[in-house]
Amino acid sequence: MTKPTDLRAIVFDIGDTLVHAAAPGTPVAELRAEPIGDAVHELRALASRYRIGAVTDTTVMTSSDVRTALDGTGLAELLEVIVTSVDIGAAKPSPRGLRRALDLLGVTPEQTLFVGDADCDEAAATAADIHFARAGAGRSPGDAVRAFIDARSGALAAAIALVGPLDAEAEAAARDHHDRLTKPPGSLGRLEALGIRLAAIAGAHPPPRPAPAAIAVFAGDHGVGEERVTAWPQEVTGQMVANFVAGGAAINVLARQHGASVTVVDVGVATDLAGLVPLDAPHLLRRNVRRGTANLAVGPAMTLGEAQTALDVGATVAVDLVAAGAAVLVTGDMGIGNTTPAAALIAAFTGRSPAEVTGRGAGIDDRAMAAKVAVIEGALERLGGEREPLTVLAEIGGLEIAALAGFIIGGASHRVPVLIDGVVADAALLVATQLCPEAIAFTVAGHRSTEPGATAVLDHLGLEPVLDLGLRLGEGSGAALALPVLDSAALILQQMATFDGAGVAAKHR
Amino acid sequence: MTKPTDLRAIVFDIGDTLVHAAAPGTPVAELRAEPIGDAVHELRALASRYRIGAVTDTTVMTSSDVRTALDGTGLAELLEVIVTSVDIGAAKPSPRGLRRALDLLGVTPEQTLFVGDADCDEAAATAADIHFARAGAGRSPGDAVRAFIDARSGALAAAIALVGPLDAEAEAAARDHHDRLTKPPGSLGRLEALGIRLAAIAGAHPPPRPAPAAIAVFAGDHGVGEERVTAWPQEVTGQMVANFVAGGAAINVLARQHGASVTVVDVGVATDLAGLVPLDAPHLLRRNVRRGTANLAVGPAMTLGEAQTALDVGATVAVDLVAAGAAVLVTGDMGIGNTTPAAALIAAFTGRSPAEVTGRGAGIDDRAMAAKVAVIEGALERLGGEREPLTVLAEIGGLEIAALAGFIIGGASHRVPVLIDGVVADAALLVATQLCPEAIAFTVAGHRSTEPGATAVLDHLGLEPVLDLGLRLGEGSGAALALPVLDSAALILQQMATFDGAGVAAKHR
Repeated sequence: MTKPTDLRAIVFDIGDTLVHAAAPGTPVAELRAEPIGDAVHELRALASRYRIGAVTDTTVMTSSDVRTALDGTGLAELLEVIVTSVDIGAAKPSPRGLRRALDLLGVTPEQTLFVGDADCDEAAATAADIHFARAGAGRSPGDAVRAFIDARSGALAAAIALVGPLDAEAEAAARDHHDRLTKPPGSLGRLEALGIRLAAIAGAHPPPRPAPAAIAVFAGDHGVGEERVTAWPQEVTGQMVANFVAGGAAINVLARQHGASVTVVDVGVATDLAGLVPLDAPHLLRRNVRRGTANLAVGPAMTLGEAQTALDVGATVAVDLVAAGAAVLVTGDMGIGNTTPAAALIAAFTGRSPAEVTGRGAGIDDRAMAAKVAVIEGALERLGGEREPLTVLAEIGGLEIAALAGFIIGGASHRVPVLIDGVVADAALLVATQLCPEAIAFTVAGHRSTEPGATAVLDHLGLEPVLDLGLRLGEGSGAALALPVLDSAALILQQMATFDGAGVAAKHR
Repeated sequence: MTKPTDLRAIVFDIGDTLVHAAAPGTPVAELRAEPIGDAVHELRALASRYRIGAVTDTTVMTSSDVRTALDGTGLAELLEVIVTSVDIGAAKPSPRGLRRALDLLGVTPEQTLFVGDADCDEAAATAADIHFARAGAGRSPGDAVRAFIDARSGALAAAIALVGPLDAEAEAAARDHHDRLTKPPGSLGRLEALGIRLAAIAGAHPPPRPAPAAIAVFAGDHGVGEERVTAWPQEVTGQMVANFVAGGAAINVLARQHGASVTVVDVGVATDLAGLVPLDAPHLLRRNVRRGTANLAVGPAMTLGEAQTALDVGATVAVDLVAAGAAVLVTGDMGIGNTTPAAALIAAFTGRSPAEVTGRGAGIDDRAMAAKVAVIEGALERLGGEREPLTVLAEIGGLEIAALAGFIIGGASHRVPVLIDGVVADAALLVATQLCPEAIAFTVAGHRSTEPGATAVLDHLGLEPVLDLGLRLGEGSGAALALPVLDSAALILQQMATFDGAGVAAKHR
């Protein structure tokens, strides 16, 4: 459902697809391969899920010459097979090189995608009956793969394909650098670990500043509100969407302070927004999957297809915000009643009891609290032992929670840090982790919500939040407050003087 | 020592001293008194320590007319006596009005200060043999009193005189406003309490933004370093002063991020700075009281006079930074070995044992740790039951700690928030609280240092820090990280929409 299971191998052209092509006539000994964009990280991510190879035309180089030329780029070790036109005595558009690569990889044409920048690449793929995706002209090899998978299987599947490991080299460089800075080693505490993580996420030391930030507030309504699990009327969700668009909510204030954008995504608001807000407002995305979930107390909150669509909405929003320049993403949510599905998901995925993980949300009395716990207990009973993530999400989740899960994975697929807000985002993080375990490495828990479910998730995932200020608002507010701390972590690595540089004596005993 | 004990009463002229004078000929019924600057808060502070009165010349008004005219300004209730020229049939420079006021207050001329803006005020004071301080022309009545006390008893005493209570009215207005904002009441957690406190500190709702910030890093050395209680050589203090001046330290990075200034104050560095740093560097204040303290393991760290001078240095730096535009102050410190006097002061003033409050500072092994505890135990034994703050500070404190205590009180005297950094600042806060208990209301604990003494102070004073990020660097780094959170607290009150204003429905059950 979230993964194109039929795709098994990805084969790349090299010149102007993976590396900038050398000028014609450059002597082989002088070739210095320079990867295009973030090709190394993209291939590393893809290599954990697909067989990876390359088919390239050269005038004189054999596959072993090409491996030598790629030395030091990090690409050679990711290409399981390399076939050159010299090796086989035929250049593209002949399909012979591709066929050789498929033989070596042991995959069929239907299971293979070829990524190249030129018409002859496409012609060779057609001749070999292999799927083709166009790279080049500003489109990285990863972008090409993403577009191909997105068109066949959706944005979430495409994002999952591109979530790779953290960059161990950048991480080590940042760690070493911290011990050379003019301070006792370790004395900046969590700021050091955060800076090192930013380097590992970006694959660069020093890490880039996590700025500008893009905050996405996903809004949805919840049929379970019928069970009186919340003290607020459902129309508040739509009214708050209008408030976000008008710039009057807490998250707008914090966003302005930190130079962040706020994108409001209607993924499941029940109210017709037409009367509340200019529908062409900038930063309002109308991606309504359905007008609020069904009541999870009596049946599935949504269909599998709706859950999948909401996941894709979230992944697409993340990818688009990064494309527009965001260097860090912040998870925001708005949905009257949404701490009920959040607690239900948290109970399902952490194995804790509903009573342990359910809180008072925006403020309810003892009677409503008892009703809330009972509703969650009932839903979990209906769920039985079922733990397939999409099924659980559809049964007891929410549209904005699904979108947030996709959003987290979308950010991870572009190697930008994703700051996680409170309990609703924590529930989404659990879902994201079920769908794509590698994504969690790209997230930072912004704060500890007072909702007990939040702490349950943080404990379950082994996360230590940046802030603990007793917030329970949502909207991304707690995560937004953590933005300057994350920025500090990067700036310290970028700007602080070293002992050597500043002429400061190190520890003497 | 820190208070001019002989001063008992302060008498003020009214027109152009406490309130803007009405145009001559304004009918009494139309008089609308407008206090000058922050006169009300200044008088409220002074009224908690001195008898307060007013002597004013009018053409037709009796003291009861003047009280009526001052209605609603908050001044009338602070003026214990009001004497007008109409009441006594004589205008200044006649001393009769002042003499009447002194009779009513029951104080002697020597115990009294008269504050006025005009030559006739000064002439009347001279004729009555009363001290005089000039206000007006941009100098608030509080400034005039401050200058008078500063000249006689030092900057710390002057600051203590002007530390008043929080503004209960602004506090209540901010608290009420929070419940009208578009969010569940209380859902912004600590951010709400911080915003309300900022209003109470500034005496304004909404509170002004705590920006720009001024960070003062007080640097001093410690004779106790001889006891091998630290792993770093003493020359690092001076080298780090050079690093601060060059902009390469952690605090410089954080200050640039937050648009804050860094002022480095040499209050007790042992090394000659001449070879390390341009002595005319901007933001370097050379206020060296002595070149490092004596070894507190064998005798007093400094004399009472040196401790007093360092306190005055700190208070003056605070007052000057506020005059230069700082809206929030950040305590910074640098001093190899300074966690030893900090722990000693914390043990003395919290009553906890040295073993409980002593930590590993910038990093020491078990042997050095045992030596550190033993040194502190020895010093406390020498101190016996003595708890007079200045004496304790001189015996077992440090020059930068004394300056920080003065700095905190100086900030409080100008009603600006003072963000407290780690364990060294926490020790200074304890000293400040001993010298001026009201000052603590103007402080915010920026973070929880990993040093056990820090938590001991926070618990002792009932403070909850904004951040808990495992820092143990000093320099003001932890407090600087909290600056944007404090700013958020003010911005929320300034900018968020209300339920009414945004058309959002409130809680319905």
